[in-house]
Amino acid sequence: MAHNTKVIADAHAPPVTQILADFVAGHPSHGWDASVDREAHRTLLNWVGCAIGASQHPTVKAALAAVMELAPPEQATILGRHERVDVASAALLNGITSHTFDFDDTHLRTIIHPAGPVASGLLALAEHYGATGRQFIDALVLGVDVECRVGNMIYPEHYDRGWHITSSTGMLGAAAACARLLGLDAGKTAMALGIAASQPIGVREQFGSMTKAFHVGGAARAGLMSALMAKHGYTASGRAIEAPRGLAQTYSTKCDWSEITDELGKRFEISFNTYKPFACGIVIHPSIDGCLQLLSTNRLPIDDIERVDLKVHSLVLELTGKTAPRTGLEAKFSVYHACAAGIVLGEVGEHAFSDEVVARADVIALRDRIKASVDDGIDEESADVTITCKDGRKLHVFVEHAIGSVQRPMSDADLRHKFHGLVDPVLGNARAEQVIDRCVTLSGNADVCTLTASARASAEAVAAE
Amino acid sequence: MAHNTKVIADAHAPPVTQILADFVAGHPSHGWDASVDREAHRTLLNWVGCAIGASQHPTVKAALAAVMELAPPEQATILGRHERVDVASAALLNGITSHTFDFDDTHLRTIIHPAGPVASGLLALAEHYGATGRQFIDALVLGVDVECRVGNMIYPEHYDRGWHITSSTGMLGAAAACARLLGLDAGKTAMALGIAASQPIGVREQFGSMTKAFHVGGAARAGLMSALMAKHGYTASGRAIEAPRGLAQTYSTKCDWSEITDELGKRFEISFNTYKPFACGIVIHPSIDGCLQLLSTNRLPIDDIERVDLKVHSLVLELTGKTAPRTGLEAKFSVYHACAAGIVLGEVGEHAFSDEVVARADVIALRDRIKASVDDGIDEESADVTITCKDGRKLHVFVEHAIGSVQRPMSDADLRHKFHGLVDPVLGNARAEQVIDRCVTLSGNADVCTLTASARASAEAVAAE
Repeated sequence: MAHNTKVIADAHAPPVTQILADFVAGHPSHGWDASVDREAHRTLLNWVGCAIGASQHPTVKAALAAVMELAPPEQATILGRHERVDVASAALLNGITSHTFDFDDTHLRTIIHPAGPVASGLLALAEHYGATGRQFIDALVLGVDVECRVGNMIYPEHYDRGWHITSSTGMLGAAAACARLLGLDAGKTAMALGIAASQPIGVREQFGSMTKAFHVGGAARAGLMSALMAKHGYTASGRAIEAPRGLAQTYSTKCDWSEITDELGKRFEISFNTYKPFACGIVIHPSIDGCLQLLSTNRLPIDDIERVDLKVHSLVLELTGKTAPRTGLEAKFSVYHACAAGIVLGEVGEHAFSDEVVARADVIALRDRIKASVDDGIDEESADVTITCKDGRKLHVFVEHAIGSVQRPMSDADLRHKFHGLVDPVLGNARAEQVIDRCVTLSGNADVCTLTASARASAEAVAAE
Repeated sequence: MAHNTKVIADAHAPPVTQILADFVAGHPSHGWDASVDREAHRTLLNWVGCAIGASQHPTVKAALAAVMELAPPEQATILGRHERVDVASAALLNGITSHTFDFDDTHLRTIIHPAGPVASGLLALAEHYGATGRQFIDALVLGVDVECRVGNMIYPEHYDRGWHITSSTGMLGAAAACARLLGLDAGKTAMALGIAASQPIGVREQFGSMTKAFHVGGAARAGLMSALMAKHGYTASGRAIEAPRGLAQTYSTKCDWSEITDELGKRFEISFNTYKPFACGIVIHPSIDGCLQLLSTNRLPIDDIERVDLKVHSLVLELTGKTAPRTGLEAKFSVYHACAAGIVLGEVGEHAFSDEVVARADVIALRDRIKASVDDGIDEESADVTITCKDGRKLHVFVEHAIGSVQRPMSDADLRHKFHGLVDPVLGNARAEQVIDRCVTLSGNADVCTLTASARASAEAVAAE
């Protein structure tokens, strides 16, 4: 029957759909180390910040306008906005907002952005059905584990085919998390995973368009609805992931079942989650980090800089080699702009990629004095940065791992600083502080509505748009 | 970058996404032969019949219960039911109902079921926004053309990978049709296609579960929302189908661009649509047809039958070789039951696959006297049927093409008969006749709401469930 189709999944594959369902339905609440719980709260905080930060973006407004044609009831909050919508649309919109700036969390091994698909539907459900913070955190940890383990199983071939892996595995994480929150048994959880397995979303060709962010929201919505359908007795194949014409065979050319089963319930993938300090692709983070380190260690006035020399991995110039970007979006693909803006502003948040900053004379002047060259001895995670001063001094740093990597994680203080940068312009500093507090203490909170209520914008904010 | 990934789409591919968008937005209303319009109305009639017929099925009730958790407003009709829901949920539910019996239309070259994904969202939109029948039929023809041309482009490799091709191309047909109905220009139509291109649905592993029918509704919903998002300015890649990391490369291992462009606007794929006379897989239709032909030509009493011998293509026994099915669902995979039920009942509608008919003593007795053997000289579209009578007579027929094929299409009278078989049990004979009338005259009707109003069940029908 098959033309050119290599068989990677056959009738003898282990029953990984049911294994994951048993795990999601049966793993004890808080059944892991304190470090896992801590990372779950950090994941939540970073995700909420990204979602609120982008909540006024044209991408979100366009999607919201489409949703409003469905006249949704006010069931759940869109973070950072005043409007409330049905739980499925809230999943869609929170997924879109949280990925719009591409500033959300990263599971580096698969480049999945884990939180968006999983947390977006989960928070909406938890708000509408009145879950506790503990239930939310449990479901978040388990959903991220399902999503990233499936990612590990099929990466990198699946990604190389063209899939945006965040949303082509995320629907499973979302279904798992929502099934857990709804208290579905293992049989119905397998059905939820099965329904979701038929709904992978996203081709990489969309990178650079609004549809990239849609992928994340679409996966969140698909997973949530899969869980709601399973709750009401909708059926699917119980072997939808591993069967000969199931997910692995259809969407990938590689699968490794042991990635699902090894240390399941012992090692949690959320432990390896990372957070971006800079609002651009990870490949240029080591260069930015090097510039910022030299600047702050040496208390160097910008006017003293003669030139900056970067030695980088070849991917840096391949992906971000634009020397004279004209817009904020183009500037995300310019290592020159990113480093120049970082030196001028002292940080590289979303503001560094505004059209306004891209057009600043001081940024442009510095940008043109930054030179980057490929060095085959330098790998993707590293960069070698030299600043030559006008007085002839040479300042040098070699960055092995950038800030934000697993090896040099963002501190809690870094995450709070990033959060304020994203949220203060939307909700103000005091409210941002309140939202932070409710995120980092969520597992002890009896009701997630305290979080959603504080993350909702006032009616005046809408009127002011 | 790529591991094991053959390049089938590259930067030099023709701009088929934009070509299709230009076609959908710009082709004149009723810009085709009368035969195309006639087939569009037949497609509609058959689809509405299937949807109403399955509207009380447990599959539909489970999906509806999940949708009701979203508290949808009453925007659009679910055919055959009293409840009304938002347009996107109506798209989902009408798609599910219309494919639940697997009795809907077939584009034989690709085995796409064209109407479900395209008509389901279209009818909901047309009802809610007040479109004319002409607008609906125009959009139906164009949407089916997009869906089936993309199918032709990637079939059979795409199907062989494991995709349920109806729903992994149907989201594009749905997006095209909805974009046309909303009056989007070519630019926004390309965005609608682009957003939809990221949302293929369905693996074949789901065949046999409720999720198979979900695929069709999911594609309808995805296409509708893609069009609504594009209307409000949401953007996507304008080369989402043909780009190196777009639809063709990611979802298939074959693509033939000429299938999109050849005779575009001259040859319409809806012309090749076919309708099933029997409520089971097409592979056993020639055998059933042969039995029914012999029975009616010879006015043969059932008690006179000694045995029935079928010579068939090997796929018949491979797919439908169950000799002693115990349930209606199993019986769909038994050529023996299908022929026996056909001989006893005189027709093979959905009722023939009820548990009740499967358990009938007369059906079982006859089933056990039916023998099927593979004949390498007989192809998939044919069957050789011999009935041996108790008095020694042998009645023989060779069926080259079964009723319902392109070569021997269902007549209008056949389609009406099928419609009544499906709809009378739900809405009664008189109302069924009214719905038929509104389907076959739709293009001359100023408002599609006359159709949806007559296809809606009364409140009493809901109370009686």
